[in-house]
Amino acid sequence: MSGARYKIGVVAPASRMSPDVATKVPALAERLYPDRAPEIVFHPQCFASHGHFAGDDETRASAFLDIANDESFDAVWFARGGYGTCRIVESIMCGLTETSKQKAYLGYSDAGMLLAALYRAEFGAVAHGPVAQDILRNAGYAAVTRALAWMIDRAPEALEPTVVDAGKTVAFNMTVLSHLLGTPLEPDLKGHILMLEEVGEALYRIDRSLFHITSNANVRRVSGIMLGRCSNITPNDPNFGMNEEEIAQYWCQRAGIPWLGRADIGHDVDNKIVPFGPCL
Amino acid sequence: MSGARYKIGVVAPASRMSPDVATKVPALAERLYPDRAPEIVFHPQCFASHGHFAGDDETRASAFLDIANDESFDAVWFARGGYGTCRIVESIMCGLTETSKQKAYLGYSDAGMLLAALYRAEFGAVAHGPVAQDILRNAGYAAVTRALAWMIDRAPEALEPTVVDAGKTVAFNMTVLSHLLGTPLEPDLKGHILMLEEVGEALYRIDRSLFHITSNANVRRVSGIMLGRCSNITPNDPNFGMNEEEIAQYWCQRAGIPWLGRADIGHDVDNKIVPFGPCL
Repeated sequence: MSGARYKIGVVAPASRMSPDVATKVPALAERLYPDRAPEIVFHPQCFASHGHFAGDDETRASAFLDIANDESFDAVWFARGGYGTCRIVESIMCGLTETSKQKAYLGYSDAGMLLAALYRAEFGAVAHGPVAQDILRNAGYAAVTRALAWMIDRAPEALEPTVVDAGKTVAFNMTVLSHLLGTPLEPDLKGHILMLEEVGEALYRIDRSLFHITSNANVRRVSGIMLGRCSNITPNDPNFGMNEEEIAQYWCQRAGIPWLGRADIGHDVDNKIVPFGPCL
Repeated sequence: MSGARYKIGVVAPASRMSPDVATKVPALAERLYPDRAPEIVFHPQCFASHGHFAGDDETRASAFLDIANDESFDAVWFARGGYGTCRIVESIMCGLTETSKQKAYLGYSDAGMLLAALYRAEFGAVAHGPVAQDILRNAGYAAVTRALAWMIDRAPEALEPTVVDAGKTVAFNMTVLSHLLGTPLEPDLKGHILMLEEVGEALYRIDRSLFHITSNANVRRVSGIMLGRCSNITPNDPNFGMNEEEIAQYWCQRAGIPWLGRADIGHDVDNKIVPFGPCL
């Protein structure tokens, strides 16, 4: 592990990161931690490009392993979401060494594919929360400040407010969770509070995702579901007839899963951190 | 079962049917079968409306059971796809009587949710093929002519050309199959040729669906995958870097599933019929 300075490695297992992020995030960190600024290393792969992805599958997987298996790093931070993590989870999981288990992993959205597999493999510090590129959102400094506070200090104020008393928690983008159920990435969800958020989907798709998720035998063993924010919902033709909260309550009721209300997560700058498993 | 006239009941377990269909389809049937025109009954539920759906869940499920459990009908024909079948499959499956097993079921797209469950329950004449509302497509008469030929005469020329020699087949819209895997609707796919088609999705979503589908242990027991047409593919930003066939080949190769080429199915008037199981 690191010496005096906390060391964060940023990698992009999915889509390419904007170069601006690599100047804005360290500048913010210097201001926030004047006496103990973390060292933030952006793997060159973050800026690579191969079709949809930040480099081809091998490049992205190797970059992740470069950081995860290097004992000088304390945390592996996802540069951003987008799409592509599922293509490289298998090779990453095969390449991780014991060193990789000692550090923190933070991301959300498409990153959920890898967070799920790491948690399944009993990594102890896996969390759903802001990515580096969130700094480009309007008021995105708040999101990155929160991410740093969790990585560096496990600051309680960075957490989704209910997780401290929740027992075990996990959080996912709905579409991402739907697409990893039944694959080797799927973790045991028994006894967890499951928090779900969504972005950019029509209500009929949210309904279909929640049918799929709540019909799954593993998911039916969760201790409850909380709904995060569903943002940029695309038009539904005709009007769906229910909003996202009514949809989530409906499927919880049908599945016999306790409905536990709203969670403070989403594709936005207020996205609070949800550690996987018991609260750290 | 029926007397001299073949009797078809049309129901809409998902979205509302256009009223035009109820005049155009019987008129075509009269022209095609002047001496033995089938009786085609459009359940009033086809025209009902409740938010996104052709009537509320109870109305749609009851309508399906009205036709399926009525021994005078020879076939249950899906009015159209859209979205909503998954919400009522459970109550339909609980309400079906022995009579329902004696008739044919034809549809595709969202109807795949129910076709899967019927096939899982060992219904013998379940098929993926045109819906009544396909008559409104440009040159849609061809699709409806094919549907009638299969329902009334099991005409070999209505079939997807490879199914006769394929052993056992199933066909699904990719997104629909992805969302029923891991639910009580999922049929045993061992030894089947699995044909997949898609409409209106970006290539990254097709890639993600095929990750999910080909990573599933049940799907990995198929004897091969064939790719139907993927139409109205929405823009991918940036350019994805592979087309849908390259994507399907990639995931088959990774999963160790034989890639068997293209299938003559899709969201179009050329959508050929694929019986579930051995060729009828």
